Amino acid sequence: MAVTRGRFITLEGGEGAGKSTQIRLLADALAGCGKEVVVTREPGGSKGAEEIRALLVSGETGRWGPVTEALLHTAARRDHLERTVWPALDAGRWVICDRFFDSTMAYQGYGLGLGRELIGVLQATALGDFRPDLTLILDIPVESGLARANARRGGEDRYERMDLDFHRRLRDGFLDIAAREPGRCAVIDASHPVEAVQASVLDAVTRRLGVTIS
Amino acid sequence: MAVTRGRFITLEGGEGAGKSTQIRLLADALAGCGKEVVVTREPGGSKGAEEIRALLVSGETGRWGPVTEALLHTAARRDHLERTVWPALDAGRWVICDRFFDSTMAYQGYGLGLGRELIGVLQATALGDFRPDLTLILDIPVESGLARANARRGGEDRYERMDLDFHRRLRDGFLDIAAREPGRCAVIDASHPVEAVQASVLDAVTRRLGVTIS
Repeated sequence: MAVTRGRFITLEGGEGAGKSTQIRLLADALAGCGKEVVVTREPGGSKGAEEIRALLVSGETGRWGPVTEALLHTAARRDHLERTVWPALDAGRWVICDRFFDSTMAYQGYGLGLGRELIGVLQATALGDFRPDLTLILDIPVESGLARANARRGGEDRYERMDLDFHRRLRDGFLDIAAREPGRCAVIDASHPVEAVQASVLDAVTRRLGVTIS
Repeated sequence: MAVTRGRFITLEGGEGAGKSTQIRLLADALAGCGKEVVVTREPGGSKGAEEIRALLVSGETGRWGPVTEALLHTAARRDHLERTVWPALDAGRWVICDRFFDSTMAYQGYGLGLGRELIGVLQATALGDFRPDLTLILDIPVESGLARANARRGGEDRYERMDLDFHRRLRDGFLDIAAREPGRCAVIDASHPVEAVQASVLDAVTRRLGVTIS
């Protein structure tokens, strides 16, 4: 019997947007209606990609130049796709991914100024024509997001330590990406309480992917 | 006083072509006529690139898919250029590099079948318009090269364990690269004894770069 291919959902957004929480809630909801769900993340999500992640997330800001950093993210992404995402989708599983190629576009392309063209070329190399079935962009004002992120215990994320202008370019980048690809991307207002954001997420998944979540 | 920019010389070739020996001899010759010389290698040659190299050279064949591998090489190359090669050239030093982007083209593009276009796009990302001033391609029949390489103590190189067809595609790839860019590349017959190969190398450097090596 042929297996129906799974769906690939990515969650994107700046610091403190609440991606982890919403991913957990979405995974539970999909599992509750009978989907086999794989939750994964970038950079990382496969053995090799996690090793590349270790190079990316440790050390001081400026450890890697922006182009090198974008190349490392793209290498990790390719490994993650080949070893984790594509096999899971082929086996009929639904894959939810914490960050994907829009993060590289937003952080390196918009935030660090490499531009859409260079990042687009790298994405084409890693992905070919592959795209997420749905990308949820969790949007929150920069100050609120950073306040939330700072309230958490100090993590591994170099970006949280960067300046406010960077985070503004990042947010504008995500919104620009969503505006350019409205068929794939849904912007979720993540400044509301968790339950309200969850309702928006489930609504987007229901409407865009035609799955009924009870 | 303005510093005259140094020159960038890369040595390429399959296994057992004798690159290391010729690099040492060339470095000595250039130093002997007053050049400040930096000898470096790829993948590696800078702190970050050496960390990426550790991911590339360890583990079993097939640990990385060909596209991931090409991306990792390109990331390491960018770091190496930014941190080691470009600063040295700007400071007037001559840089001799054991393998450079032609190796990615030959191994991943020709040997592993990714093709010239994909690798070309990655090179453009890492290098922009930057190119070596001179590339010496040490050419040796596949069987002789592998016999020499096998006679050395077992190293870290995964490629030495690959099949003969792969090494033939590699050699043909290097020769095709040289034929396409005769202004940059010189093919050196590396099947001769060390001293004869050294003479060919010095002759190419003298003629192509206009330096007199006594």
